[in-house]
Amino acid sequence: MRVIGVDPGTRFLGWGVVEGRGTKLRHVGSGVLKLGDGPLPDRLVAIDQQLMTIIAEHQPTAGAVESIFFAKNAQTAAKLGHARGVVLLALRRADLSVGEYPPARVKRALVGGGRATKEQVARIVASLLALPEPPPEDAADALAVAITHLNTERFASALRAAR
Amino acid sequence: MRVIGVDPGTRFLGWGVVEGRGTKLRHVGSGVLKLGDGPLPDRLVAIDQQLMTIIAEHQPTAGAVESIFFAKNAQTAAKLGHARGVVLLALRRADLSVGEYPPARVKRALVGGGRATKEQVARIVASLLALPEPPPEDAADALAVAITHLNTERFASALRAAR
Repeated sequence: MRVIGVDPGTRFLGWGVVEGRGTKLRHVGSGVLKLGDGPLPDRLVAIDQQLMTIIAEHQPTAGAVESIFFAKNAQTAAKLGHARGVVLLALRRADLSVGEYPPARVKRALVGGGRATKEQVARIVASLLALPEPPPEDAADALAVAITHLNTERFASALRAAR
Repeated sequence: MRVIGVDPGTRFLGWGVVEGRGTKLRHVGSGVLKLGDGPLPDRLVAIDQQLMTIIAEHQPTAGAVESIFFAKNAQTAAKLGHARGVVLLALRRADLSVGEYPPARVKRALVGGGRATKEQVARIVASLLALPEPPPEDAADALAVAITHLNTERFASALRAAR
């Protein structure tokens, strides 16, 4: 199973592809799209096109995205919603199932607590994937949600096998 | 000039295409997409695909959408943002410029006040476009924003001509 995790944003968008084989995790690719500060419709087109290219290149078999954290204000939520809508569209149109995980669950899955700092998440992601150094913040968040999805699926299939 | 107005939503999405020639307005087509209650990513794919079909069929030369009304709560704003993001993407990807208008301005342009009821908007849209009866609410809102865009562009070009 090969999962693309995405951390949506309208200025920076993190992505990361992780492969799981048995208990092993392998880093396939990751990065941060810089979307600039042009008109929002143009940035949404850039998200759509670049995600299509990344999916074509890295051939994930599933997608994973953090669910929206609703404590944010309405304006932030609306803006983030635009980017997240285009991400869900791009994943689904590429025939990927989409797992959605609350941010606290992603952190708990990685560091055993819901309150890890951004730096802790990046360091743990680097250690789990044997990266030479912590990835940039948005890429680390994307890799973290991909790892969460892989671990969740692995746990679910282990449960099925044990029945 | 032929404008497609869109009233984004994740359950129902209104659209309407209006042509302006001189001072005349002509109704080209309008309707409401029923998106059901399946998973959100599937509904976003449906919005994208059906808007592409509508654009191909009715050949608008510009797009218009209401800007988000930020008094809504964060959860509503986020959900609406998902649909609106996919709409902006579809319009921009079809090479249409996108005009954005606050809801109060759309109402004021039509009925001379920011507080018109949905029914008033639908009746005035029907009268301006010589429709036999008021269109459904979401289609009426989409036609209203298209008319606002046409009137705004007309006013701007009259101003340029008068200089």
